Amino acid sequence: GTKRGILERLDDGEVIVGDGGFVWALEKRGYVKVGEWTPEACIENPEAVRQLHREFLRAGADTMQSFSFYASDDRLGKGENEADSKFTRINKAACNLAKEVATEGDCITIGGLTQTPTYLSGAGKKATQEQFRKQAEVLVNNNMDVLLCEYFERLEEIEWAIEVCKTFGKPIAATMCIGPDGDLMNNSTGDCAVRMVKAGADIIGINCKFDPFVCLEGMRKMKAGLDAAGLRAHLMVQPLAFLTPDANKHGYTDLPEFPFALEPRLVTRWDMHRFAREAYEMGIRYIGGCCGCEPYHIRAVAEELAKERGKLPKGSEKHDMWGQGLRMHTKTWVRARADRRYWEELRPSSGRPLSASMSKPDE
Amino acid sequence: GTKRGILERLDDGEVIVGDGGFVWALEKRGYVKVGEWTPEACIENPEAVRQLHREFLRAGADTMQSFSFYASDDRLGKGENEADSKFTRINKAACNLAKEVATEGDCITIGGLTQTPTYLSGAGKKATQEQFRKQAEVLVNNNMDVLLCEYFERLEEIEWAIEVCKTFGKPIAATMCIGPDGDLMNNSTGDCAVRMVKAGADIIGINCKFDPFVCLEGMRKMKAGLDAAGLRAHLMVQPLAFLTPDANKHGYTDLPEFPFALEPRLVTRWDMHRFAREAYEMGIRYIGGCCGCEPYHIRAVAEELAKERGKLPKGSEKHDMWGQGLRMHTKTWVRARADRRYWEELRPSSGRPLSASMSKPDE
Amino acid sequence: GTKRGILERLDDGEVIVGDGGFVWALEKRGYVKVGEWTPEACIENPEAVRQLHREFLRAGADTMQSFSFYASDDRLGKGENEADSKFTRINKAACNLAKEVATEGDCITIGGLTQTPTYLSGAGKKATQEQFRKQAEVLVNNNMDVLLCEYFERLEEIEWAIEVCKTFGKPIAATMCIGPDGDLMNNSTGDCAVRMVKAGADIIGINCKFDPFVCLEGMRKMKAGLDAAGLRAHLMVQPLAFLTPDANKHGYTDLPEFPFALEPRLVTRWDMHRFAREAYEMGIRYIGGCCGCEPYHIRAVAEELAKERGKLPKGSEKHDMWGQGLRMHTKTWVRARADRRYWEELRPSSGRPLSASMSKPDE
Amino acid sequence: GTKRGILERLDDGEVIVGDGGFVWALEKRGYVKVGEWTPEACIENPEAVRQLHREFLRAGADTMQSFSFYASDDRLGKGENEADSKFTRINKAACNLAKEVATEGDCITIGGLTQTPTYLSGAGKKATQEQFRKQAEVLVNNNMDVLLCEYFERLEEIEWAIEVCKTFGKPIAATMCIGPDGDLMNNSTGDCAVRMVKAGADIIGINCKFDPFVCLEGMRKMKAGLDAAGLRAHLMVQPLAFLTPDANKHGYTDLPEFPFALEPRLVTRWDMHRFAREAYEMGIRYIGGCCGCEPYHIRAVAEELAKERGKLPKGSEKHDMWGQGLRMHTKTWVRARADRRYWEELRPSSGRPLSASMSKPDE
Repeated sequence: GTKRGILERLDDGEVIVGDGGFVWALEKRGYVKVGEWTPEACIENPEAVRQLHREFLRAGADTMQSFSFYASDDRLGKGENEADSKFTRINKAACNLAKEVATEGDCITIGGLTQTPTYLSGAGKKATQEQFRKQAEVLVNNNMDVLLCEYFERLEEIEWAIEVCKTFGKPIAATMCIGPDGDLMNNSTGDCAVRMVKAGADIIGINCKFDPFVCLEGMRKMKAGLDAAGLRAHLMVQPLAFLTPDANKHGYTDLPEFPFALEPRLVTRWDMHRFAREAYEMGIRYIGGCCGCEPYHIRAVAEELAKERGKLPKGSEKHDMWGQGLRMHTKTWVRARADRRYWEELRPSSGRPLSASMSKPDE
Repeated sequence: GTKRGILERLDDGEVIVGDGGFVWALEKRGYVKVGEWTPEACIENPEAVRQLHREFLRAGADTMQSFSFYASDDRLGKGENEADSKFTRINKAACNLAKEVATEGDCITIGGLTQTPTYLSGAGKKATQEQFRKQAEVLVNNNMDVLLCEYFERLEEIEWAIEVCKTFGKPIAATMCIGPDGDLMNNSTGDCAVRMVKAGADIIGINCKFDPFVCLEGMRKMKAGLDAAGLRAHLMVQPLAFLTPDANKHGYTDLPEFPFALEPRLVTRWDMHRFAREAYEMGIRYIGGCCGCEPYHIRAVAEELAKERGKLPKGSEKHDMWGQGLRMHTKTWVRARADRRYWEELRPSSGRPLSASMSKPDE
Repeated sequence: GTKRGILERLDDGEVIVGDGGFVWALEKRGYVKVGEWTPEACIENPEAVRQLHREFLRAGADTMQSFSFYASDDRLGKGENEADSKFTRINKAACNLAKEVATEGDCITIGGLTQTPTYLSGAGKKATQEQFRKQAEVLVNNNMDVLLCEYFERLEEIEWAIEVCKTFGKPIAATMCIGPDGDLMNNSTGDCAVRMVKAGADIIGINCKFDPFVCLEGMRKMKAGLDAAGLRAHLMVQPLAFLTPDANKHGYTDLPEFPFALEPRLVTRWDMHRFAREAYEMGIRYIGGCCGCEPYHIRAVAEELAKERGKLPKGSEKHDMWGQGLRMHTKTWVRARADRRYWEELRPSSGRPLSASMSKPDE
Repeated sequence: GTKRGILERLDDGEVIVGDGGFVWALEKRGYVKVGEWTPEACIENPEAVRQLHREFLRAGADTMQSFSFYASDDRLGKGENEADSKFTRINKAACNLAKEVATEGDCITIGGLTQTPTYLSGAGKKATQEQFRKQAEVLVNNNMDVLLCEYFERLEEIEWAIEVCKTFGKPIAATMCIGPDGDLMNNSTGDCAVRMVKAGADIIGINCKFDPFVCLEGMRKMKAGLDAAGLRAHLMVQPLAFLTPDANKHGYTDLPEFPFALEPRLVTRWDMHRFAREAYEMGIRYIGGCCGCEPYHIRAVAEELAKERGKLPKGSEKHDMWGQGLRMHTKTWVRARADRRYWEELRPSSGRPLSASMSKPDE
């Protein structure tokens, strides 16, 4: 039989579990450099990238997203002939790694494009779209099932990206890295949703820069925007795994802890359960994670929605839900933690008596 | 030339960087089950274990420790013939994985033994030592360079373990999972040090259950104990990567957040810098990590001591120290974070306004 | 010469400093009972009430408000002949105490009325206004300069109160105990302002139930409401001296700490400086305090606005601004605190490592 | 009948409830200046001092302590003839105010002496004792029942003070402002207790500078010191009403919040209940408060020990214990707070999301 596409699956009401945050997970593992954030690891240490793909597969991900973050030609550097440029080699390798692991499951491959230095430099629509065209081409030539425009801070730029992707005949997903207060050009979050759909995106939503619950607030605005405009689209959300109730419009980059001291903000698996449930109840059906999301966070999404999906992920072999693995612990007070309410209600301490709970964003 | 052994290297004043926490890192990746904490992954998903070894090697580890935590025969289950028992297969596979990656660097292999259910059941010295003999045998037969008795909560049991290991003619390291207040049998931390050395350990110290700075407090007591007794030994420390200022004598297991909501307590790389420096200044020369330690934590140890060691780890290709990788960031206020003092002085917020900083340990 | 009235003084652009929170200050001193909150102290312990009036006068207050909080006839109990009822005796005593101390300075006397059980019982407009009429009468008969309708949670009830007061020919001030999200009948904060003015209030604003900065957010909405309606009125604000960023629409009563564990939320004198400045800049000219406000909080308001008012309060004899009294301290590090920026920037710790910074309101 | 003295009452096992913190309470009311901390209010605003005495009496205090803090001749300034010097006038007025209110109850009057600039200047024993002699004389001449040497940071100085007081034939109480780690001359807390008793004190203990629970830790050391030395004495404790788990040996003065931002550290009445119970159980029978202690804190001590004392304070007319006054509140969730366990278990939030729970002491 033929593999069913993402749109068919979403149309049928399936829950699609996304994968998690490659840049951050691989930074901790030693393969990505903060400040550059680029995916040279695809050609330098493919085994590390492949292993992370496998972990997300095992955690229940239905998508394998090419590790092509920030891999636009204008960011990776020039000076090489196009046929074998760094740009081409990295994107191609990223696609091949995603495809390889996708075939180990029944995964949809996602080719990702992101915002570009060309746009920011003010070079205009034509030059910017040329960047998107280049990247979409290499993703499509390497057989990605879906094109995903993600991590855009400005509506205009993602519209241009969607327009370009539209010409390739693939399903298009589009997510901006914004919260409920709109994009950096003062477009409201609702308007962003409307215009992404009008530009041609099949699936729209939010990724990165805000925590799961702030992202859901943003999604509520997107949904309301679409409703008000009489539009419909599939919804997706891939949030940070860092709590950011104190972030301003720029998201976590303006928090003083970014990027090297975000540890105390890391969400627990129980936060992800709550997020997955709330996202589902809001009608979002493509639910994954972004920066900070480790495989166990994605597994928590898949476990929370196990009934709706009719299955548990492979990785649940090594995980009893809601702490049930503690039932046999030698200490009675640890056994008492084998309890769903215990973990749902726990407010975990930071172990940091000299730290506050909130920061004032820089600017 | 012959590979120099751990004792020769320590005698020469070398700093040995240990590796980090396999159980916890692999739990997050989906390969270890909380409650069991056993290393079946060595035979079930060897590629995941191998990859983690490689990451620690890349991070600067001088040791490759067999992932044989809790892999004693009495814990893994019986009913199989010894030659190919689960016990033998897992320990053998663990040794082979450690050796394989050790040869990719210039690493010392460490075979680890831990406390046993047999001891706790009260079966006595002979039965307990039989467990240790079995495990030491398989580790030695599979060519581990060093035997490490680690994660012992009671002095008597580690003495028994050291005695057994002593018969195999390998260098012996021994670490208890205690803090400054002594073991669970009310032996003082200083006495623990003295008796581990008297039992035959060449290298002694502390691993797990307390945060880096609490462990160093314990190490101060160990050192003082040895000094008072006129004894000398090499010192090592492999702490948790979770902050536990509020832990009681039982360590982090009694904290309400254990084991599924410790995220806000996770140490930053900068905490590890400070830890490595303080450990070094105290005269400790084998410095690694335990539960919660990811490759980037170990890299921070290696980077802090780069001058003393005369080298940076391979993984520093992807890391500029003290945030220097932010110097070119597009936002001035993020560029301002490319500064050592900034990170040294930052008190990172938790993003959790409903959480406290400390917990009351359960009991 | 004749004493100038409150409206003339406000018309001339004077800053009127209000007094602080009698109920709470006298509860701590042992004269008011939590749960009842009524001012029997006026007849039982007049010296304690008089002393507190004097302290606020000394702190810089331009108003002496009768301690007649919750002293409506329907709340104080019946069964006595009107001429010498508890209701009459308390209100009369309250007025006399306020007048007595007012004459020691150049103070305006304020007679206060608050929301009534009669309204809440649904007895209707006539019965409710009868309560207000009774209370206004006793206040006017005892020569209060101004009638202040304060601590109303519902717009309709304060409109009825203002209407009644209007018939007595005195200047009328009116404040609701609401924040920026409107009253308990779902009237917006802006609408509340508009309708209080339309009902006849000369001075309007907010008192109690929210912290100084939340109250100012509410005041911004009131101002915007008036502007939009093309109305003008004098503005006043008398906030809690407890920080309540986490309060819901019901204010501090729904916080779990109310009323016996609000101590950690108590504002500092420096918080009051900032509040006074922001209130002034917003155009508010009657600035005082409510529950929790001690004399030193009011002195901070008067000190912050000393230049605008052309004078310091008497109580500043015992206070050097911005910690200047520490300049001669024996310890250098305490001397370093004789510095305005030090106190402006300090984020004071709670000394409560088991407490969070925010609570979830009950409901 | 004759009034029974403090020693007879303590010998009979009575609980003596002390009064609270005059300096701080009167600072907030506008009568004491930070930095000087001296009691000119006794002559400048006697009605304010008298009122505070009355509030403590009403709260249950069995002692009326002359408000003569820091009122030594060397601190108050010279240049006047002894007979009517500022020193004499203030101390005399302080005694008269204490006596006046003491006669309204059945209170013991306490004349207080504190550490002197003369000692700190190194002028030696003779000059220092001359200061103490002068102050004790005026206190005794004005009929104080007990001499209390309090707020001493150095053992030697309090020994000198006790020696002087001894010559006046009055019962002597002596408290140092130290915690469990000893005085500023490196005498242990236990030794301080022993030597105060040997110098002639009848009642010894700790006052000020540390929170109730840290003071009790200190008291445990004092008691153990006396036991080890085979000595007996009556015990007293009068702690801060500010939580100081993070203070160093210098107490709260080294905390960054001292003296103008200690509000979030203020203890609740429930903290005082727990303190009173623990103090009582430790065998301490003179239990009061120091800086920060308001009348309601003292009432909490008297209420907690109501059964042991066989009476409730007068001020309990206006206070139902453990929140019982909330039983009739209109909101069910506030009524639910009329419950002892609710208040015992509540961890009150600070409302300060940008603040930490602990500070690093300055030095």
